[in-house]
Amino acid sequence: MSLGVWLVGGRGSVAVTSIVGALALRAGLAAPTGCVTELPGLRSPALPGFGDLVFGGHDPSTVPLTKKAEALAAAGVLPASLLAAVQSDLAAVDADIRPLPEAATQSATAGLIVADLVEFRERHGLDRVVVVNVASTEAVPDGHRAHHDLALLEAALREPEPVLPSSALHAYAAFLAGCPFIDFTPSTGARLPALDELARRQGLPYGGRDGKTGETLLKSVLAPMFAQRNLDVRTWSGINLLGGGDGANLADPAANNAKTTSKQRVLGETLGQEPQGTVRIEYVEDIGNFKTAWDLITFAGFLGTRMRLEFTWHGCDSALAAPLVLDLARLTGAAHAAGRSGALTELAFFFKDPPGDVSHSLADQFRVLTEFVAALDQAQP
Amino acid sequence: MSLGVWLVGGRGSVAVTSIVGALALRAGLAAPTGCVTELPGLRSPALPGFGDLVFGGHDPSTVPLTKKAEALAAAGVLPASLLAAVQSDLAAVDADIRPLPEAATQSATAGLIVADLVEFRERHGLDRVVVVNVASTEAVPDGHRAHHDLALLEAALREPEPVLPSSALHAYAAFLAGCPFIDFTPSTGARLPALDELARRQGLPYGGRDGKTGETLLKSVLAPMFAQRNLDVRTWSGINLLGGGDGANLADPAANNAKTTSKQRVLGETLGQEPQGTVRIEYVEDIGNFKTAWDLITFAGFLGTRMRLEFTWHGCDSALAAPLVLDLARLTGAAHAAGRSGALTELAFFFKDPPGDVSHSLADQFRVLTEFVAALDQAQP
Amino acid sequence: MSLGVWLVGGRGSVAVTSIVGALALRAGLAAPTGCVTELPGLRSPALPGFGDLVFGGHDPSTVPLTKKAEALAAAGVLPASLLAAVQSDLAAVDADIRPLPEAATQSATAGLIVADLVEFRERHGLDRVVVVNVASTEAVPDGHRAHHDLALLEAALREPEPVLPSSALHAYAAFLAGCPFIDFTPSTGARLPALDELARRQGLPYGGRDGKTGETLLKSVLAPMFAQRNLDVRTWSGINLLGGGDGANLADPAANNAKTTSKQRVLGETLGQEPQGTVRIEYVEDIGNFKTAWDLITFAGFLGTRMRLEFTWHGCDSALAAPLVLDLARLTGAAHAAGRSGALTELAFFFKDPPGDVSHSLADQFRVLTEFVAALDQAQP
Amino acid sequence: MSLGVWLVGGRGSVAVTSIVGALALRAGLAAPTGCVTELPGLRSPALPGFGDLVFGGHDPSTVPLTKKAEALAAAGVLPASLLAAVQSDLAAVDADIRPLPEAATQSATAGLIVADLVEFRERHGLDRVVVVNVASTEAVPDGHRAHHDLALLEAALREPEPVLPSSALHAYAAFLAGCPFIDFTPSTGARLPALDELARRQGLPYGGRDGKTGETLLKSVLAPMFAQRNLDVRTWSGINLLGGGDGANLADPAANNAKTTSKQRVLGETLGQEPQGTVRIEYVEDIGNFKTAWDLITFAGFLGTRMRLEFTWHGCDSALAAPLVLDLARLTGAAHAAGRSGALTELAFFFKDPPGDVSHSLADQFRVLTEFVAALDQAQP
Repeated sequence: MSLGVWLVGGRGSVAVTSIVGALALRAGLAAPTGCVTELPGLRSPALPGFGDLVFGGHDPSTVPLTKKAEALAAAGVLPASLLAAVQSDLAAVDADIRPLPEAATQSATAGLIVADLVEFRERHGLDRVVVVNVASTEAVPDGHRAHHDLALLEAALREPEPVLPSSALHAYAAFLAGCPFIDFTPSTGARLPALDELARRQGLPYGGRDGKTGETLLKSVLAPMFAQRNLDVRTWSGINLLGGGDGANLADPAANNAKTTSKQRVLGETLGQEPQGTVRIEYVEDIGNFKTAWDLITFAGFLGTRMRLEFTWHGCDSALAAPLVLDLARLTGAAHAAGRSGALTELAFFFKDPPGDVSHSLADQFRVLTEFVAALDQAQP
Repeated sequence: MSLGVWLVGGRGSVAVTSIVGALALRAGLAAPTGCVTELPGLRSPALPGFGDLVFGGHDPSTVPLTKKAEALAAAGVLPASLLAAVQSDLAAVDADIRPLPEAATQSATAGLIVADLVEFRERHGLDRVVVVNVASTEAVPDGHRAHHDLALLEAALREPEPVLPSSALHAYAAFLAGCPFIDFTPSTGARLPALDELARRQGLPYGGRDGKTGETLLKSVLAPMFAQRNLDVRTWSGINLLGGGDGANLADPAANNAKTTSKQRVLGETLGQEPQGTVRIEYVEDIGNFKTAWDLITFAGFLGTRMRLEFTWHGCDSALAAPLVLDLARLTGAAHAAGRSGALTELAFFFKDPPGDVSHSLADQFRVLTEFVAALDQAQP
Repeated sequence: MSLGVWLVGGRGSVAVTSIVGALALRAGLAAPTGCVTELPGLRSPALPGFGDLVFGGHDPSTVPLTKKAEALAAAGVLPASLLAAVQSDLAAVDADIRPLPEAATQSATAGLIVADLVEFRERHGLDRVVVVNVASTEAVPDGHRAHHDLALLEAALREPEPVLPSSALHAYAAFLAGCPFIDFTPSTGARLPALDELARRQGLPYGGRDGKTGETLLKSVLAPMFAQRNLDVRTWSGINLLGGGDGANLADPAANNAKTTSKQRVLGETLGQEPQGTVRIEYVEDIGNFKTAWDLITFAGFLGTRMRLEFTWHGCDSALAAPLVLDLARLTGAAHAAGRSGALTELAFFFKDPPGDVSHSLADQFRVLTEFVAALDQAQP
Repeated sequence: MSLGVWLVGGRGSVAVTSIVGALALRAGLAAPTGCVTELPGLRSPALPGFGDLVFGGHDPSTVPLTKKAEALAAAGVLPASLLAAVQSDLAAVDADIRPLPEAATQSATAGLIVADLVEFRERHGLDRVVVVNVASTEAVPDGHRAHHDLALLEAALREPEPVLPSSALHAYAAFLAGCPFIDFTPSTGARLPALDELARRQGLPYGGRDGKTGETLLKSVLAPMFAQRNLDVRTWSGINLLGGGDGANLADPAANNAKTTSKQRVLGETLGQEPQGTVRIEYVEDIGNFKTAWDLITFAGFLGTRMRLEFTWHGCDSALAAPLVLDLARLTGAAHAAGRSGALTELAFFFKDPPGDVSHSLADQFRVLTEFVAALDQAQP
């Protein structure tokens, strides 16, 4: 099963790391460390192979992928030795990362995006294409009544005034083109009632939101631990220092707000109450792609005794996100092949802010994911 | 159902915190924070109530419980205000904490222990008595062939040369007296084939080993997290600084060894390989009952990128252990009432080094525990 | 030499801890831990003894000192045992903590403050009174041209519109009353040209600003370390979590701004360049008087190799501040006795934001302080 | 002034980083970050320039320097780009790193070392050669009465039984050859009365011991901070995780002991009492050249309130050591030129375990160093 992976933000750090990694895996030059779909309990013939993936995307930048990859190697995100080995394969992908189309109305822009997707699918003779949003985080958009009704939305998109944030317009176009959509960022993506309506009408699955790559990953195991031990978490405060492209963008208070909201959701829903404290995001350019998150949790135990847990996570966001992007493309492609449509709540394992009323415990989410893959397995002809 | 809780090490910090806490819970002066059996999914009429618990025990010390409790209050482990309220109830328990019996042979000593247990059960008219070992950690004992066969053991116990470490002799006597046994420490306890034979013969359940109250608790959620994300944990090193009574004892290299072995087990079994690094235990008297554990985990992600997680746990061991001691007494009492005998593998949630081939993931262990309580519930008349 | 210590904010945590501590020291019930003026190189007959100190102050609150002290004991800031011993002495101070006077103009209010100070000095027959501001941090005030000229200021104070922030009005009144002034907070205090003019005219010394009790104390030794090793500090980011009274106040962005500015000053002046990153202050009520500060410093070494230092400071602000308040009262009293007037730049050791062009290295500041005390010593009759 | 720098352990990580760095500085390809002698207050015409340094050394390994440098680049210690630029210069040094001579007696071995040193000096026409020990740490040697008397030592060296540890034999040979000696490791080096006697007789300066590159550097500023604030440091515990060549060697308990002893010295001498706790060194191979040190300091403040400081230092030992090796060579060369002989106590700034009764405060040590350079400056013709 050949599968197109269309990356919105196709020249960004996460996209380039995903592409280089897939090329290296295909060439047998790297192990699938960080790829969940390669774990014994999740490996399945229902999933397209790494060698079946064909990459394309949209990006306003025109910097060649090889240049971006070199910068990532210099920053310690990609091994320099690997780069040489995949250089020509990487250069070949370049032509499939297109500039962002722009037209007089969002409806017309969506038409151009659809055309790019269809052309990509046909030219490569792909069975299907999954669109994955890995572009920079947007500000939280103002609400609009057209967001709640597909007919209203279609009308509004033909007006000159934009009605959808960019991520949602890409989801809209993906659905029109018959492509499943995954939002790896905290942006709006497919999370509007009108877009859910469209996805279901088109028989397309979608998933999101906001890949769980650091502090929230830890929260999704630590919060259940406190809850299962009946310990009383009093405060949970943290700070995230990050310097990559997304960091600069998150320094914008509106985007920051989108992110921190999805980051705290796990606590309230797991602990049954919201502890005091907040999570801050701070942009420190010099830190680059390696993010440092520090959290302090204070809790009360038996007879009120006060205790504390402190952790520091020093992770490379691109290296954590890229294998999950490959996982999500494979899983969503297989779900589409199996006829699934609408929100894929079974992918909550991957996201900070998953759709539906799901458990925020990583262990529960892993079990659900395992069952999901088993079901895909059985659905195979 | 009235339940005796017989504490080996009945004047130690964990024991005193457990007793004071149970008295405070009974009097409605404290919330059951830290008591797992009070969580919505685990609360059950099959379990004896806090008000049904009656405490006794063995301890070589003769310091009154109220004195011990005052010292714990001064150290910030118990709230001073609470102490005043439970003072007379606490003093009443004093008479039931007996000196350690000693006789010419271990067989005779066991007989004296049995007599104490039976007298305690009868005097208080208890339905049953659960023996819980919360005494100081012993050195790892030398092996002995009598450990493997009950008949050989019974013969050997009649010789003048001791054949069982103290914790195992208490388990032996508990079983003779018809009492279930829980080992909350890393000592031998009931973990010898000959004692397992005895427990089954007597139709008694037992559980252990080594209450999971700090660093290992964290390992039991963090190691599965790394495993489920297919991340390659390269090193896991840590140090535990502790100053309470058990700390002084663990400074003894042999005891230290018993403890660190059970602490690393979770890693190998969860990650599928043993990462480099060790856990050290260091006694720093001035730190007192509050233990600080620091761990550094280094791991490789996609394409080998190196990342790290560091945590500091600052916990009060007695405050973490005491509610679990109450949980274990209630659960084991109920299991006995339900006719269970042999090793209670379903209690792995509580222990660093549980018997049987069980999952070391806290989430899995919690599910097993929930099902165990549900089964006890249904077994009720 | 009897010395009055008049505390603006006399019922706050720092004030109460200072008073209780001085009473305990006078009674021989505590060691002068944290009192710099009791170090071998700084002890001097030129300084008033702890037994010579008499406390008074202003505070809008009317809660008795003993009540406040009990709350601090419950929070672990003061030892409960000590409280009982100094209770009656503490209650005796209560009458000397007056409500904040208020009148139609700031000039009239200043007159009432002066009257309180003079009455206090005369009633107790004190040689002199040092006024120390330990009230909550104010917002950074708007500039005003009367701040730059004493004559203009005196005219403006007679207008109905307030022209001075509260801390500066207290400094103004202190100087009118012939009292030296110390600002232990980041508020304006005596740091206006017009007030400097007044202090010099009256022959009075003053000092400040913002007691160095935690993160900045560490910066004042770590920044020189990096500088003296010629290491290239690239980023310095931090977060302060605090929950006491001052924490709530600092949650106000304007006050927060005053504080973080004085906190970063040491870096630029010591390192010769301002590293990237900022310091955040966050109010987390449940944390109480114990403040947790976390800092991450990234630096480049030889040939650009990147390294990092991370620290967590878990300190009790009141316990760190109170002995310094006593030190400053003693030192400033002695400086006044020795005829010093104007800004006491030699007290930079104590402050985040000292006046004058002084070194921000703690070691340099300590040497200057030692020489200052030696000079006071020699100035003695 | 041309200066030979003879490195004992000339193919180790510190040596290779020092050589590559000096070549890069000479070529203007790198900034002297980490070189103390390039600070404004320490730059002096009395010191040989980086371009005046000529490298040689002894090492049992025969791996070419360029190979070693490549391994360091792969490990992130040296920038790969720099390596290409200095490759041929580096290869040229290779011939001057000689195998370790061995003969029937230590006296004869010393003679061969002397011959190597003299040949090196003459062939390159050097004004002088400073010998710097950067070889692996030795075990603490047994005492020997010949260590206390030069005449006895010279006799003993002619016996077949070795009497000096390797580092001390190199110091002995250096002195015989008229070369100053620096011990950058915790090994014995020149720290024997007999060798001091020899150095003085030969009119040669020497310095050491154990370069201060991480945790001890921090201790030398933090311990004075606590002392100057009159805070009562109760415990100071730490662990060092390291994986480089020296790490493997320090896993040997005897060497470990040498190291940890010199690491704690600063505390006792600065704080006036030894706090509880110890420093552990643990070898974790996978960590490589980057060392992680974690320290926990607990202290009591005013009225006994307990507080804590925790830090993590993540440093690259070679990158921290190499610029100091260059500094020490320059300073010691200049001291020799100025006629200094015996122990250079003014270099305490660089060492964990300096000779003489010196301050352990980094700030004091920096002032002494500054005055030392000023004196060298004035001693110039």
